[in-house]
Amino acid sequence: MKLAISGKGGVGKTTIAAALIKSFAETHRTVYAIDGDPDACLAAAIGIPEGVAAGLKPVVEMRDAIRAKTGDGAFYTLNPKLDDVLDDYCYQYNNIKFLRMGGVKKGGSECYCRENTFLHALITSLLLDSNEVVVMDMGAGIEHLSRGTAGGVDLMLVVVEPSRNSVNTARLVKQLAADLGIDRVRVIGNKIRSAKEREFIENSFQPGEVLGFIEFNDTIWDSAMEPNSTPAGEELLKGMREVRGKILGEAGGSAQGEERQG
Amino acid sequence: MKLAISGKGGVGKTTIAAALIKSFAETHRTVYAIDGDPDACLAAAIGIPEGVAAGLKPVVEMRDAIRAKTGDGAFYTLNPKLDDVLDDYCYQYNNIKFLRMGGVKKGGSECYCRENTFLHALITSLLLDSNEVVVMDMGAGIEHLSRGTAGGVDLMLVVVEPSRNSVNTARLVKQLAADLGIDRVRVIGNKIRSAKEREFIENSFQPGEVLGFIEFNDTIWDSAMEPNSTPAGEELLKGMREVRGKILGEAGGSAQGEERQG
Repeated sequence: MKLAISGKGGVGKTTIAAALIKSFAETHRTVYAIDGDPDACLAAAIGIPEGVAAGLKPVVEMRDAIRAKTGDGAFYTLNPKLDDVLDDYCYQYNNIKFLRMGGVKKGGSECYCRENTFLHALITSLLLDSNEVVVMDMGAGIEHLSRGTAGGVDLMLVVVEPSRNSVNTARLVKQLAADLGIDRVRVIGNKIRSAKEREFIENSFQPGEVLGFIEFNDTIWDSAMEPNSTPAGEELLKGMREVRGKILGEAGGSAQGEERQG
Repeated sequence: MKLAISGKGGVGKTTIAAALIKSFAETHRTVYAIDGDPDACLAAAIGIPEGVAAGLKPVVEMRDAIRAKTGDGAFYTLNPKLDDVLDDYCYQYNNIKFLRMGGVKKGGSECYCRENTFLHALITSLLLDSNEVVVMDMGAGIEHLSRGTAGGVDLMLVVVEPSRNSVNTARLVKQLAADLGIDRVRVIGNKIRSAKEREFIENSFQPGEVLGFIEFNDTIWDSAMEPNSTPAGEELLKGMREVRGKILGEAGGSAQGEERQG
């Protein structure tokens, strides 16, 4: 199972991603947690100390290592298991393997196209056992979709808050994901403060598309000023366990899901 | 005066940008409002009806028009006034001229490098009278800085909310803006709910860097589900008039500011 988390800026992608990663870590042997945003903060949200992630080699540098090993940068010659190369670029945190796409670049130096292209190739070629899962936290907006970075995932999870803008972005994500051949796009409603807000999101999508709702949480807001805040508290984790169950249930129920696992 | 608005996803860049554009429209003859995010919603925040902006030709297409006119795409042959070409790509809303960088692209088709490069060239070469101003709403994150899109602005305004992540992004923006030769980077604290939150932001930056604070506004939150919501209410506008005064005061006080105007 490979999944990417998308949505408008500020809807809570990273908080949701971190909680989902933690919930998968409870049931799966290995969770690959990938920060696909150069303005990165997934590591801190998982609980990895500040500074550790920044010191980590970005996966894009792996390209050269693979090239040196295989001669042509082709992944398939290394597969079925890329583990030994991957481990060099991971920060292992319990059974979570954290990777980051790219580091900070000098202003005016270049785009992140190379990083995105490589991340796409990496995700696409990664072969997983059924007890392994990949969760990628994408950058805000839609360029990771026009670039095709997340192409090759089994599920695109779009986080929305009760706002028209975030719902519009989610619909756009769905449309662009379809271009990429990602048929499974599901929604998580975040920062819910009332039944009206919940209904607004429910009514904005097709039945079955919304996998769950997460209540607005004052504690997350208040702890946002603290260093090393780990917002994935018990309440959020509980919500994401339910979401995890639905994701696995859907995947297990479909032939496609069976095929891709194992 | 050319300014760009930056910051972490979800801090309220577009809301602040729209209010600032409206406040400049009260005192300046023309405000160029540029949406630099392909996942665009600045138009709606200004009050331009949904659909109008989507139907607008993106500025990147202007490149070909200019090339056809000048033979080589050089801007300077058209300057001092690009007005006649620009007007073709603007939606005029009172004295606001709205432009958008790029439209939605098919998933997996391409990046937005071309759009960013052209926007940079356009902004850099635009000659303004002292009663004209450019306000660019940038996409979330830092790629518009590593790409250098906003290079050439006089002022980078970074919106932060009371969270460590958004402050970290603001510091990163400042560092990358310096790489681009943008010396004036200022901060607006948004979504402030307490004195503690205000202090947190104040203490996170140098004295004089924070131009103003905007209170957390329940009305903005509640209206976010409505179609054509125009969140720049009177309270926010009042705050942005103060910010405008500080921006113009600072610019007027420096020789650099004098030079660039006129």
